[in-house]
Amino acid sequence: MDAAQAASQALTAAGQPFSLAVDAMGGDNAPDIVVDGIGIASVRHPAARFLLVGDQARLAPLLAGNTRARDACVVRHTSDAIAADCKPTVALRLRQASMRLAIDAVACGQAQGVVSAGNTGALLALSKIVLKTLPGIDRPAMAAIMPSARGDVVMLDLGANIACDTRNLVEFALLGDMFARTVLGLTAPKIGVLNVGSEDVKGDDRVRGAADIIRGSHIGGQFHGFVEGHDIAAGTTDVVVTDGFTGNVALKTGEGALKLVSDLLRQVFNSSLSTKLGYLLARPGLEQMRVWLDPRRYNGAVMLGLNGVVVKSHGGTDAEGFAHATDVALDMVEHRFNERIREGLGRLGGVLSEQPPGPGPALAAAG
Amino acid sequence: MDAAQAASQALTAAGQPFSLAVDAMGGDNAPDIVVDGIGIASVRHPAARFLLVGDQARLAPLLAGNTRARDACVVRHTSDAIAADCKPTVALRLRQASMRLAIDAVACGQAQGVVSAGNTGALLALSKIVLKTLPGIDRPAMAAIMPSARGDVVMLDLGANIACDTRNLVEFALLGDMFARTVLGLTAPKIGVLNVGSEDVKGDDRVRGAADIIRGSHIGGQFHGFVEGHDIAAGTTDVVVTDGFTGNVALKTGEGALKLVSDLLRQVFNSSLSTKLGYLLARPGLEQMRVWLDPRRYNGAVMLGLNGVVVKSHGGTDAEGFAHATDVALDMVEHRFNERIREGLGRLGGVLSEQPPGPGPALAAAG
Repeated sequence: MDAAQAASQALTAAGQPFSLAVDAMGGDNAPDIVVDGIGIASVRHPAARFLLVGDQARLAPLLAGNTRARDACVVRHTSDAIAADCKPTVALRLRQASMRLAIDAVACGQAQGVVSAGNTGALLALSKIVLKTLPGIDRPAMAAIMPSARGDVVMLDLGANIACDTRNLVEFALLGDMFARTVLGLTAPKIGVLNVGSEDVKGDDRVRGAADIIRGSHIGGQFHGFVEGHDIAAGTTDVVVTDGFTGNVALKTGEGALKLVSDLLRQVFNSSLSTKLGYLLARPGLEQMRVWLDPRRYNGAVMLGLNGVVVKSHGGTDAEGFAHATDVALDMVEHRFNERIREGLGRLGGVLSEQPPGPGPALAAAG
Repeated sequence: MDAAQAASQALTAAGQPFSLAVDAMGGDNAPDIVVDGIGIASVRHPAARFLLVGDQARLAPLLAGNTRARDACVVRHTSDAIAADCKPTVALRLRQASMRLAIDAVACGQAQGVVSAGNTGALLALSKIVLKTLPGIDRPAMAAIMPSARGDVVMLDLGANIACDTRNLVEFALLGDMFARTVLGLTAPKIGVLNVGSEDVKGDDRVRGAADIIRGSHIGGQFHGFVEGHDIAAGTTDVVVTDGFTGNVALKTGEGALKLVSDLLRQVFNSSLSTKLGYLLARPGLEQMRVWLDPRRYNGAVMLGLNGVVVKSHGGTDAEGFAHATDVALDMVEHRFNERIREGLGRLGGVLSEQPPGPGPALAAAG
């Protein structure tokens, strides 16, 4: 046992679990940006304690150069890591990998959540198997925060579940509601179900059934109804519920459109001396817009519905982006996200059992 | 019989069918923008002849004020029109409505295509019932052209079919290929199937089955494989194939993201004297970008796979937008779109029958 492990065990023995276990080796720029990211997050969350899982030989010099991160971390050494192209089935067998040990720390109560910039498929699979879903949740969902004209919007599922039934969509609405409350600080988030039109008759049995159940549940007062693709950026609702296939495509389509415009703007402003001067004059506003739409500010996809907080950072992010993903995880831990989800699920269970058993399209579709 | 009807019958009797039948009464700003739109399109297509179906009392003064449109049009009078909120089932019974008569003109060979800015659901339902699908096409698809970093991209289906199976997706690939050839003028359009990842193992049986069949077909050489949401605006492929639910959401999500940025830019440039001056300096480039992304330039969703060319203009468009939708329809007519689709279907039929009958995931999913 090395010094770090001893320190970690001493801490947990003293009843001081870590706020987060961090996979130090996941992502394109690990472990450098992970250590620097923790340093940044530590300023915003001075009480947070991190269990940093990774290669001590690589981490030691980085921590020596970042006193803030060093003071907030305890290192658990492992030389194994899950590669970016590792298949989930293979990843499941790597029991000493940094990602696995970080998730294990949550499972055994040593940490309240985990952050990784590593392999998404592996993180999904390991989290589901090691942490398991909350009682009453059929499948976990991947959620993220994105910018809109009226403030931040939570969308889920973003790809954890390719096919979803009515029941899954209802669970996503509940998870999204609680996420918007804890991370966005809203008291009664408006909830919408993504569809091809806003009228109640649009779409298939799956989305119409989900709308019916949500409308009759304890979050029914917050239910806006169906929303369309353009409502995401318009911020029509605070939470956008959809299946993982549609959500994944919508998220990436929106990102692609933003990238197209930002590339075009760069070309426009670089095209002549006059446009370069124009840029300089408009720069404060453009810079504000750039910061506001900065993908790093929205980094951190969250796996909701598991016994523990799980946040996936973008693999190619920098220290600022990793710090943001860490912030999201810490917000969820500090606001007792999972305890509150458990309470909400109890209330939803009542609503579901009140539904007539046979004919309702909602329950039929929910199977 | 009025003079216009007599003129129309005389024309068709003389073996001169109209290029297009136009629903003069559909859309928010009909019939004004329809007449002006035809005037604009007539400059670009001087040989085109239009059968303009609508209220002659309202059309006569508009045509009197637009000589280009007047010279290209023959009016067929009707006082009925399909309202924007009319349900498709009700619309089917309005046999004298302008949209219906315009579609009827295509069905009886009097016109080669139809353009309407009216009720989308009604246009879809009427077109399917009156014109019927091409032999070998299970379901028609709605396609549109959109801007990308590498030029125009065709995406389909955009909402005509909420649920699609493997066979439908394969048909969409064929229809999209032919559309890109005729309207974008490409000799070998690159084709992609929209999915949650680019690897062959991603997605469900439906998309994987479609990819397998397309790869083995006569358009297999043009098949890029799976594309993701961000590939649409990146222009990774010329044709993006997807089901109507995902396509509708993706289209509107992209539009919403572009609107968000354009609203933000407007705010930025209006925020101070300095930013206003900056706008003036960068204006030529910004104006070029605005024109390039102008939704009117992409107006015209096309119903593919029917016995006749059917183009839906956005209901809220102006004359320039309606002219663009008309251009798309005329391009399809002039390039013998439907004849070429029939040839392509014949070749695809061969590919489908070459598939092993039992076990293939593609055919199983195609059911």
